[in-house]
Amino acid sequence: MGTIVQKYGGSSVGTADKIISVAKRVIKKKLEGNNVVVVVSAMGDTTDDLIATAKSITPDPDKRELDALMSTGEMISASLLSLALKSMGHDAISYTAYQLPISATGAHCKSFIADIEKDRIIDSFNKGQIVIIAGFQAINEEGDITTLGRGGSDTTAVALAAKLGGICEIYTDVDGIYTVDPRLFPKSKKLEEISFEEMMELSSLGAQVMHTRAVELGEKYNIPIYVSHSNKDTKGTFIKEVEAMEDKPITGLAVNDSDAIITIKNIELSANTLAYIFEKIAEQKINIDMISQTAPVNGNVNISFTVPKEDIEICKSIIDTTEHASLIKIDEDVTKFSVVGIGMRSASGVASKLFKILYDNNIQVKMVTTSEIRITCAISQSDKLKAVQTVAEEFEL
Amino acid sequence: MGTIVQKYGGSSVGTADKIISVAKRVIKKKLEGNNVVVVVSAMGDTTDDLIATAKSITPDPDKRELDALMSTGEMISASLLSLALKSMGHDAISYTAYQLPISATGAHCKSFIADIEKDRIIDSFNKGQIVIIAGFQAINEEGDITTLGRGGSDTTAVALAAKLGGICEIYTDVDGIYTVDPRLFPKSKKLEEISFEEMMELSSLGAQVMHTRAVELGEKYNIPIYVSHSNKDTKGTFIKEVEAMEDKPITGLAVNDSDAIITIKNIELSANTLAYIFEKIAEQKINIDMISQTAPVNGNVNISFTVPKEDIEICKSIIDTTEHASLIKIDEDVTKFSVVGIGMRSASGVASKLFKILYDNNIQVKMVTTSEIRITCAISQSDKLKAVQTVAEEFEL
Repeated sequence: MGTIVQKYGGSSVGTADKIISVAKRVIKKKLEGNNVVVVVSAMGDTTDDLIATAKSITPDPDKRELDALMSTGEMISASLLSLALKSMGHDAISYTAYQLPISATGAHCKSFIADIEKDRIIDSFNKGQIVIIAGFQAINEEGDITTLGRGGSDTTAVALAAKLGGICEIYTDVDGIYTVDPRLFPKSKKLEEISFEEMMELSSLGAQVMHTRAVELGEKYNIPIYVSHSNKDTKGTFIKEVEAMEDKPITGLAVNDSDAIITIKNIELSANTLAYIFEKIAEQKINIDMISQTAPVNGNVNISFTVPKEDIEICKSIIDTTEHASLIKIDEDVTKFSVVGIGMRSASGVASKLFKILYDNNIQVKMVTTSEIRITCAISQSDKLKAVQTVAEEFEL
Repeated sequence: MGTIVQKYGGSSVGTADKIISVAKRVIKKKLEGNNVVVVVSAMGDTTDDLIATAKSITPDPDKRELDALMSTGEMISASLLSLALKSMGHDAISYTAYQLPISATGAHCKSFIADIEKDRIIDSFNKGQIVIIAGFQAINEEGDITTLGRGGSDTTAVALAAKLGGICEIYTDVDGIYTVDPRLFPKSKKLEEISFEEMMELSSLGAQVMHTRAVELGEKYNIPIYVSHSNKDTKGTFIKEVEAMEDKPITGLAVNDSDAIITIKNIELSANTLAYIFEKIAEQKINIDMISQTAPVNGNVNISFTVPKEDIEICKSIIDTTEHASLIKIDEDVTKFSVVGIGMRSASGVASKLFKILYDNNIQVKMVTTSEIRITCAISQSDKLKAVQTVAEEFEL
């Protein structure tokens, strides 16, 4: 008997009616002769609402308690889906993280799954039960509830598929992975398949279809992940090991408006100021993404880097209290514009083609970083749509 | 250092502002030099809302899943109160039932606390932490979440006070125990103290201030329970071991409109029909309260008993399918009217005085049952207010 792990996102279980629709889809898989595990997110905006309540009490709620609070959202959906299935005549059982348990390491609000104990799941399979698991949550070394970061239910699902040796299906409110966000580029094409690496780049660059760590885990254990719409029968996208197609250097394009560029001028290289600043920023768990540094002039350099806009104030105060590094400029008019494709490894000229398109369209590039399969440019937000459309057209996305 | 277990009901933690008010009261007790444990109910109508969602999926939701669902309400309040306390500069920590654990036996939705593991609480005390515990929930032998019945957080609080050797304070939306519900009899007096037995009778008769099992547990472990308003500094009521006051035969009065009287006529005593009916009703976990039987005539008897109105249909079908017992009458116009007092043990003439008051006021008594410290009459609902007022006046309640 095959094992299928299905994950349904918050919008797919947002109402009682939607939970009943999900139950019907789950039953279909069960009746096809599979062992079925269903991972659920919190209903609709539940997680945001819980966070808002916490923040109405204090702007900076304690993270242990915030995790305990947020984890209730998935418990609610899990028990509701289970009782829906039972009311429809199919034996089902819901489990929270502590009931399996799903153990985790790492800080509150961004823990990593360490292991999943599968005994209770196997017992339930043997009883013919459909197993419903509250996503997003785990139990840390202290026996406390912790969460895996927003979108963490995807990771719960992939980890379960890896542990149980099953197929992983992610059902959401989009019907697959597109070359470009269809809201920005309506002619965008749905991909039949995409490689783990490309999907990881796209996820971390702002394509919010999948939790990045879920894709990472899929690659690590080579679990193909099928992404499709929870309420349509259209064909979705497989995230899996894919050979590069030589005629297609770029698989997808992602944009992200959430970062700002901080520029520090005339830093004395000899004073080790740069290392000090980056260390202080890292201590605050702030993610620096793009970095570019000018060549030294008189032993001084200028440096620019991007950080999430919400972290600007902390960065400013770190820099303000650092010797030899006071003159800074902050640019919030930033869109990170990225093209991704494993085909770049073999195809040359992708960068020059990209920059020519941007130049021909009067789009100024503020910063650039590249990896083996990705080129990211920081551009002005007012150029975003033009950049997406011209680049998508030219690269036939 | 003394230990205080405080319990705050749903209306006392119904909003973020109310949670902050509760936090201030908790901090006060902590600063007075106590170890403080706080048991919380679900915010406002959360439990009802969760049940309504479940029932919008299926009218008869599976009880294991319903327990898992309902238990989230208390987890939410517990983490919110804890993060409120921390934001106010006082170290606090929330625990769910499984984190201690609080273990339970018995059926879902009406389990009994079997034991509470106090190690984590003591550890937290040693760290100077205020301990917040999600009420109403426990973990059963299967490792599943179960609940203690509506109002069960009271029981969680008393059990914790018993286990920790502390004082128990129940904070709610009334400022103590009154001789009569003040909505029915505004001149009603607040009691300084009431005995466990009297409170148990009053609770089970419909005075909804306290969970009956909480009072039972208080008596068993002799834990005085202080009941007071969560948001006023008025003096509340102690539920404790009390000597009867000879001049006061009646301590309180309770009314309850939720039962109906079922009457079965001409039952053949020889056929053992009665035992059969009561057994079938008990199998359905239906609580029969008052029972009265006429003297046999020609080997036949008439019997009347009260059951909750919601169980009428089940009882009807049991009786309809029973031989020798088909002729039944159902009276839904019933108020159970009870007077309670340990003083009745030594004072004679309470019953005759009560019946004289009812008779003088043209109140027809449909059924009567008595215990050592209680007299309950079934009367018509239209006589309820008159009965409450005249009896409360005459007995100076």
